[in-house]
Amino acid sequence: MNESPGVVDLLGVLAYAELSAFLRMAEDAADFAPTLADRAALGDLAVAEYRHFQLLRDKLAALGADPDEAMAPYVEALDGWHAQTRPGDWLQALVKAYVGIGIALDFYREAAKRLAPPIADLVDEVLADQGRSEFAVERVRAALAADPAAAGKLALWARRLVGEALSQGQRVAAARPELARLLVESMAEDDQAEIGRMFARLTEEHGRRMAALGI
Amino acid sequence: MNESPGVVDLLGVLAYAELSAFLRMAEDAADFAPTLADRAALGDLAVAEYRHFQLLRDKLAALGADPDEAMAPYVEALDGWHAQTRPGDWLQALVKAYVGIGIALDFYREAAKRLAPPIADLVDEVLADQGRSEFAVERVRAALAADPAAAGKLALWARRLVGEALSQGQRVAAARPELARLLVESMAEDDQAEIGRMFARLTEEHGRRMAALGI
Repeated sequence: MNESPGVVDLLGVLAYAELSAFLRMAEDAADFAPTLADRAALGDLAVAEYRHFQLLRDKLAALGADPDEAMAPYVEALDGWHAQTRPGDWLQALVKAYVGIGIALDFYREAAKRLAPPIADLVDEVLADQGRSEFAVERVRAALAADPAAAGKLALWARRLVGEALSQGQRVAAARPELARLLVESMAEDDQAEIGRMFARLTEEHGRRMAALGI
Repeated sequence: MNESPGVVDLLGVLAYAELSAFLRMAEDAADFAPTLADRAALGDLAVAEYRHFQLLRDKLAALGADPDEAMAPYVEALDGWHAQTRPGDWLQALVKAYVGIGIALDFYREAAKRLAPPIADLVDEVLADQGRSEFAVERVRAALAADPAAAGKLALWARRLVGEALSQGQRVAAARPELARLLVESMAEDDQAEIGRMFARLTEEHGRRMAALGI
């Protein structure tokens, strides 16, 4: 199963997602964190993303794949997502980190259902970090307790984040059918329907995260 | 010696230097790296800076100091340096990383001469990473081999980097005399002269680094 081109695709898209998340979170921490403690908290999160990137890069190399080549097909979509979702302030940056990490973890989970053990182990290692972004929940909830009127605007922002992610995701799924097939149960004609259901599951998970944020 | 306010000042300035270097290098990697391999190489360097930040933060906490309070007096000078030295392209970003890390390591070395063992150990751990920025030297030299005319402009850029660093450094030295005293041999009236000599040593080291870059 390791030799499946879909596996290299999957590791490639996750690797570039982690690398770009690291870079953009660090940028947001520098630009928007209101205190040094906040800057370091988002910095910690960014560095955790980088560790995931390193795991994925090593795994690609171990499979005999060139990490750069594996990531290359996804650079445009992921850079596009970041370009469309530049935060305007600290709260937006926190919601973006929380939403972005949440979506990525959902993808890891979908992938873990169908992957060979060595890659499932990697997924477990990444998922062990899933509590890290909880600090964002606390800070957003505290900010909204102080200013409840901000919730509406932040909810719109979160919808934009996920909307842009789904639009880039569907573009990638159409361009990389092997990757899409790896993520869904069936390999038959109803691939598109199954992919649609997977995106519906991701949207549902997103709704749960929004409720946690209180928006 | 650990209780000296100068030690907390020193760890504070180094901690914020590492934190801000991490954030800005990540930003430069996202904005300017021409290839994914370059992006990851500057990302590796940024994450090494973050590890130093964590070491310094832990050491401050172990000394009973609040890391945020210890860093606060240096935020303006270091953010000012970064604001005055935003790279315009990948080569400038590489030279900035190499020059910035070089200056920081010089400060660690000056500090190590006079510090109590637990802090000297920390300095040794940071200095163990000093080979990491060598990739910047290779890439700059390769770029200049391909385009020798670029050397003059890059030399001006390096001079600006160190000039702004010295100007911020002297401002900090004047505002934080305990820190300045920690870094120079004498504690007598000729502090200013001794500080001047230390800056001269730093400038000399900088010149050596410029020669390594071929500019």
